[in-house]
Amino acid sequence: MARPTPLSGFPELLPQARLVEQHVLDVLREVFELHGFSSIETRAVEPLSVLLRKGEIDKEVYGVRRLADTAADAGGAGERGDDLALHFDLTVPFARYVTENAGHLQFPFRRYQVQKVWRGERPQEGRYREFTQADIDVVDRGTLAVHHDADMARVMGEALARLPLPGVTLQVNNRRLVEGFYRGLGLEGDVLTGSIGATMRAVDKLDKVGARGVADLLAQAGLTQAQADGALGLAQVRAGAGDLVQAVRALGVTHELLDQGVEELLAVLTAVDDLPADRVAVVADLSVARGLDYYTGTVYETRMRGWESLGSICSGGRYDALADDGRDVYPGVGISLGVTRAITPLLQRGEVRASRPTPTAVVVAVADEARRREADRVAQQLRARGVPTEVSPTAAKFGRQIRFADRRGVPFVWFPQDDGSHEVKDIRSGEQVAADPASWLPPEADLRPSVVVGA
Amino acid sequence: MARPTPLSGFPELLPQARLVEQHVLDVLREVFELHGFSSIETRAVEPLSVLLRKGEIDKEVYGVRRLADTAADAGGAGERGDDLALHFDLTVPFARYVTENAGHLQFPFRRYQVQKVWRGERPQEGRYREFTQADIDVVDRGTLAVHHDADMARVMGEALARLPLPGVTLQVNNRRLVEGFYRGLGLEGDVLTGSIGATMRAVDKLDKVGARGVADLLAQAGLTQAQADGALGLAQVRAGAGDLVQAVRALGVTHELLDQGVEELLAVLTAVDDLPADRVAVVADLSVARGLDYYTGTVYETRMRGWESLGSICSGGRYDALADDGRDVYPGVGISLGVTRAITPLLQRGEVRASRPTPTAVVVAVADEARRREADRVAQQLRARGVPTEVSPTAAKFGRQIRFADRRGVPFVWFPQDDGSHEVKDIRSGEQVAADPASWLPPEADLRPSVVVGA
Repeated sequence: MARPTPLSGFPELLPQARLVEQHVLDVLREVFELHGFSSIETRAVEPLSVLLRKGEIDKEVYGVRRLADTAADAGGAGERGDDLALHFDLTVPFARYVTENAGHLQFPFRRYQVQKVWRGERPQEGRYREFTQADIDVVDRGTLAVHHDADMARVMGEALARLPLPGVTLQVNNRRLVEGFYRGLGLEGDVLTGSIGATMRAVDKLDKVGARGVADLLAQAGLTQAQADGALGLAQVRAGAGDLVQAVRALGVTHELLDQGVEELLAVLTAVDDLPADRVAVVADLSVARGLDYYTGTVYETRMRGWESLGSICSGGRYDALADDGRDVYPGVGISLGVTRAITPLLQRGEVRASRPTPTAVVVAVADEARRREADRVAQQLRARGVPTEVSPTAAKFGRQIRFADRRGVPFVWFPQDDGSHEVKDIRSGEQVAADPASWLPPEADLRPSVVVGA
Repeated sequence: MARPTPLSGFPELLPQARLVEQHVLDVLREVFELHGFSSIETRAVEPLSVLLRKGEIDKEVYGVRRLADTAADAGGAGERGDDLALHFDLTVPFARYVTENAGHLQFPFRRYQVQKVWRGERPQEGRYREFTQADIDVVDRGTLAVHHDADMARVMGEALARLPLPGVTLQVNNRRLVEGFYRGLGLEGDVLTGSIGATMRAVDKLDKVGARGVADLLAQAGLTQAQADGALGLAQVRAGAGDLVQAVRALGVTHELLDQGVEELLAVLTAVDDLPADRVAVVADLSVARGLDYYTGTVYETRMRGWESLGSICSGGRYDALADDGRDVYPGVGISLGVTRAITPLLQRGEVRASRPTPTAVVVAVADEARRREADRVAQQLRARGVPTEVSPTAAKFGRQIRFADRRGVPFVWFPQDDGSHEVKDIRSGEQVAADPASWLPPEADLRPSVVVGA
């Protein structure tokens, strides 16, 4: 068999990099569970009809079909008439899970979900075809209090602060604020239609086409100079809890919906003022739009300092109708961390790594194959106290067994002695001392691989 | 939107059942890492050409294709000419990973891999279309010492002993032993061809067609009565380390390959004699064949006591050529636990469950919305000491807030008092006591949900 080549957009990690990913996932789980989020997983596939309801990114969806069905029934429907496809996010499957299991869930329902998703995008740094997302959402039946919007920012902020990532800026906006502002300018329609929709679409391109490009688009949409200036002025507001109200008022626009949006946004900013700002700075960024429909209130984006070209690594918002089963409406608010997007570039550039590529802390040497059982018993004693231990795969010369450990970054080699005593060598210092397999422990720092930030 | 219906064969767990699955995965990871296995994950898709090399179960494979490609290019190849499909096990992807990354791995390489796999089988109890497997394998370049075969049984046996499952029987056989015995009987060919292949295929049907049915098949394959009796006699041997040699010798067949196989099998049985037999009984079962090719030495199957109808929940074996990159051959030995197969039926029948459906141990009550910040601060103090804590979503009457906790099985509700002091109520006993948010801890048993075995 020829050596296979990697598939572009489907990153796979070597064991040492995978240890970093595991650490990230452990921290996320720890923080999410401390805040009372329940873990769920949904199946990888959804009926195409569920996935494509929004009709937006169908060209990126991967369809899934049993080869047997394809062969027997080429071009036709699947065996049950419902074509399947891989999910492209965790929100649509979660909404489906909620309506399917509403009778068994307690509302408001807080869940976290860490799974792979698939999108047939053109691969580039930070963009993959298979990648892991970590989502938190809270969903209620009927109505969902606005304090949950602050809660999502606090929980994900706390997680981001503890992850081995560069500091981040969590940018928060509010769709009601923006829509209210536009109404105050005299624009009409809604987020999808009329001059409000056109303005949202134009401002959403600010990053790509710049202020002048947006101004041209707004003129084409029929906005007056004053309206265009107002919309652009709003998109340029960056503020904290202390100066948000003033910054918006200075633009001279008033509307009831604008006031409501400002109040909601202020509540989010105020509630998270205890996050460590050097790790997670939370700011109101009134240019953040998060696409053109779907979200109805708070929206979040997150950029890593020094890695802004990756785009937002952690995004979300409020949806007044996350799900709707025909009887009840389920509003929700949530935020999703692109785990693969955030850490893969850091791993590739060596900005973060594990201290060794294996969990093993000790290799027990084997003097000859007849004494392998003895080495096995020493290893079992060490493992019983939580020390990851391997027995040397060969009874080669001790020099080779030490090199076996050294190549893996394993710090200790254990030598059962002929007289029944034991010695352990720290192969970094060369120091070898007597040790008792029933009580010896390595230093805490050597017990498990650690995650090291910086080159 | 109409309420969606579950997809048959794609099980999804409610949060309380998911906690059991997480516990199982945690135990597996803990045991695997204690034995020095590195975690890897491979992408969900492989080129179809890689998956179908063995040509055995192609009708169960799920093909994957971007909808855009399907539309633009119906019936043709994918964008890069290589059709993709979802992996149906973790062994084929691991073999591909090893050849792709051989230059970056240290051999012998011990890895564990816990991921979902997909097979388009007809769903039934213990058979799913999407399910989680947990694999351990060790692979070397060139040759792989036989003591690793015992190691796999020991590691998985240790994990099985610690899982919340009924006791299991780990059945071990050796393909060399069987082939050697058949040669000793005068049969010819190999595992795939001639009278040896025909006999293996017939004996593999013992469970389904019984001894008489196998005897008929052997007669059709041209075996003499004595040869058929011998083959059936071997398949009926169940032995431990103490009586294996005698049980095989009693059949009166000799062959050099038989001796080698007996020796290898005995080494496995002897090495694991310290497993707790009530949890994991290890026996030589000379009927175990594990399909018809692929494995070349040791083979393993595992049955849960009282759940034999599920078939083997944990299987594997040795492959002298797990992978081959044209320059080197990579022998391996491994064993794979069907996590979903083992635990889903237990969950469905209530044989195992989590003590509560949420990680939350404490709900902090909110007297009125103006005091939510105060409740948030109490919650943060508790979380800082590792206590999963939620703040009540509403400032409803305390009776409703207590019911909110009770419906989730949360044991404690915390009440900030008007005078700045605090009280905490155990809502099971009703006892309410003064408590300090800076030091209070729940009893260890209440801190996290636990896993309960038995109805």
